[in-house]
Amino acid sequence: MLDSLSDVTFSAELLMIDNCYGRIIASDIVSSEDLPPFSRSTVDGFAVNSGDTFGAKENAPAYLMMNQEVFMGAAPAFVLRKGEAARIPTGGMLPSGSDAVVMLEHAQIASSDMIEVLRSVAPSENVITKGEDITKGEKVLTKGRKLRAQDIGALAGIGITEVMVYGKPVVAIISTGDEIVPPTKPLGLGQIRDINSYTLAGLISEHGGIPVKKGIFSDSYGAIADAVEDSLPDSDIVLISGGTSAGTKDMTSMIINDIGRPGVLFHGVSLKPGKPMIGGMINGKPILGLPGHPAAIVVCFDLFIRPLIEKIGGLATDKYFLKTVKAKMVKNIASAAGREDHIRVHIEDRSGEYVATPVLGKSGLITTLVRADGLVTIPYNKLGLDSGEEVTVELF
Amino acid sequence: MLDSLSDVTFSAELLMIDNCYGRIIASDIVSSEDLPPFSRSTVDGFAVNSGDTFGAKENAPAYLMMNQEVFMGAAPAFVLRKGEAARIPTGGMLPSGSDAVVMLEHAQIASSDMIEVLRSVAPSENVITKGEDITKGEKVLTKGRKLRAQDIGALAGIGITEVMVYGKPVVAIISTGDEIVPPTKPLGLGQIRDINSYTLAGLISEHGGIPVKKGIFSDSYGAIADAVEDSLPDSDIVLISGGTSAGTKDMTSMIINDIGRPGVLFHGVSLKPGKPMIGGMINGKPILGLPGHPAAIVVCFDLFIRPLIEKIGGLATDKYFLKTVKAKMVKNIASAAGREDHIRVHIEDRSGEYVATPVLGKSGLITTLVRADGLVTIPYNKLGLDSGEEVTVELF
Repeated sequence: MLDSLSDVTFSAELLMIDNCYGRIIASDIVSSEDLPPFSRSTVDGFAVNSGDTFGAKENAPAYLMMNQEVFMGAAPAFVLRKGEAARIPTGGMLPSGSDAVVMLEHAQIASSDMIEVLRSVAPSENVITKGEDITKGEKVLTKGRKLRAQDIGALAGIGITEVMVYGKPVVAIISTGDEIVPPTKPLGLGQIRDINSYTLAGLISEHGGIPVKKGIFSDSYGAIADAVEDSLPDSDIVLISGGTSAGTKDMTSMIINDIGRPGVLFHGVSLKPGKPMIGGMINGKPILGLPGHPAAIVVCFDLFIRPLIEKIGGLATDKYFLKTVKAKMVKNIASAAGREDHIRVHIEDRSGEYVATPVLGKSGLITTLVRADGLVTIPYNKLGLDSGEEVTVELF
Repeated sequence: MLDSLSDVTFSAELLMIDNCYGRIIASDIVSSEDLPPFSRSTVDGFAVNSGDTFGAKENAPAYLMMNQEVFMGAAPAFVLRKGEAARIPTGGMLPSGSDAVVMLEHAQIASSDMIEVLRSVAPSENVITKGEDITKGEKVLTKGRKLRAQDIGALAGIGITEVMVYGKPVVAIISTGDEIVPPTKPLGLGQIRDINSYTLAGLISEHGGIPVKKGIFSDSYGAIADAVEDSLPDSDIVLISGGTSAGTKDMTSMIINDIGRPGVLFHGVSLKPGKPMIGGMINGKPILGLPGHPAAIVVCFDLFIRPLIEKIGGLATDKYFLKTVKAKMVKNIASAAGREDHIRVHIEDRSGEYVATPVLGKSGLITTLVRADGLVTIPYNKLGLDSGEEVTVELF
């Protein structure tokens, strides 16, 4: 499915940087300024020519004549000559002719117009030189990066207040099931409230998509096919949630195949929970049939939907860290070979060591996810986990 | 500072659950419904009295008479008698008198009104019983919890569409410095753009606060004192950012002491970067003086500001996982004893193993944070890290 998306045309929008936290940048950012725009002192002290201080020490100080003082936020109106020093605050601009700063505590006032330097400084010592942080013409951020707080800080630092970011992928959620009613409606006998579209909407938002709940549709070919055709034009990804019974699954498959090409790419995966998953493409757009169990929704989101949102959202995935912790399993867990198992676990901190306990209960129970802190994956070629084994828990 | 907040009065607001993802819930949630509201089948098959199947096997099947079919979303209009079976879809409501479901593939049609059951089922097998997920009267979520996608799913499942969540703490950012200009303005000589309030705003939002940029103020007692007095009534936390030079630090301390009680609680911490940090309380509200270096901002946020936002925001911190990865250091790093060092590192995935390389450069450079993926902490009693040592990287 990811391969089929290779020629997706990304949308992009120009936004104020204040609105770009967590957004994905749509072009490389090259600085048109030096940062800092001038050489700055990093300490309170005296701007000097470093050469004038070479060899200076407590018992053989260098004597320098005081020139004018440097003030914050202003360019010094003088040139520092050899043998001179100028009082400078942290962040002050080095006067022309100086190349280093002696810290206040390494100098003494010798007379009204002279200081003693008690320690030598190297060139650029206690200075951030012009362009040391960012040089004019330098690429600061690469297209496809998710902007973190400090990245926006860097943009502000070089005077960039608007950037192009990729549009967020729109993900349509079509809930199906003759028994499903919205949480706002009273329940009839045999009916059950919609849980999965609320879980899905949260996961989609959290990972950079825009969830659009299309409503709850009855388990009929016509109703679902209409909902899919209605959703495709305005969506980047279409999810059909529910339809867990064998008949419904076949119907979802049929609908995906009937509406467009290439249609269903896979139906059923070696995964628990999540086995009845259907994946396909219709005219370049991913469409997924999701199992009805709440725990399967979370696993299928992570394995199938998140990567699609990220790719369509323009995220460059070369630098990607999942939120995980290492923990020790406190129980043996069996797993069938030829199937990837995702175990819900609860984590406890036992004197500085995390321990993971499987959350018991059927994957149809939403409370197994409410009680769980994350998932542990048992790869399809592994026959389970031993008590005491170290595992990586992917946190919710 | 956290202790001084013990009698903070949390604000709370009633919101639709659709707007509560990531918010912190302000009261315990008790269900007034059973979930599921009736016993449901988890498979396509036949509802039965489990007792009728005991001992059934391939070569000695149990024969059951077919009653009516169960349809999705409706209550069965019949009672299942002993010796009977009823066709039921996944999610269908068990008819009164049945207590288990035989999977479709474990039964065969014997005649138009009879099936053969080839395998026995235990009571409740292939069934989620009424209230098995959530029982009426059960506490589903505890006050102080940050609502995740599945937690909102659970609320929808029990028909709760609005909940009380805590108000987000308002964090005022007062930028100071005679040399600081906003990124929108042209730069004069000796001036530098505001970076830190953009970084801070992003970190505050990400961790559940509302950042309010109060503007950039000159390094004078009057200007900063006015900004603090102006900010206190509408804010839960006040940050004074900048003022790195020795004189300014003392001025910030003086302002905090002059405006209210108890004033400055600490001035200077054994931390690198972040040493000049000031912390105080004014009439029950935390006020922090932050160092000017971009790298110090990120470290001080994590150690001092985040915990305050979380406490004022009502987060119960008994279950809290930082986003971390384990990595191997690729270099020795020295650290002075009696100081906690926070090292910016870049992480690479080298054939499945993460390796962390320190990002070189002064803490005054924002690009050291742009290039870094996270921070490694060297505790104050440790003299550094060895190459090859496993470290925990707290990811940005």
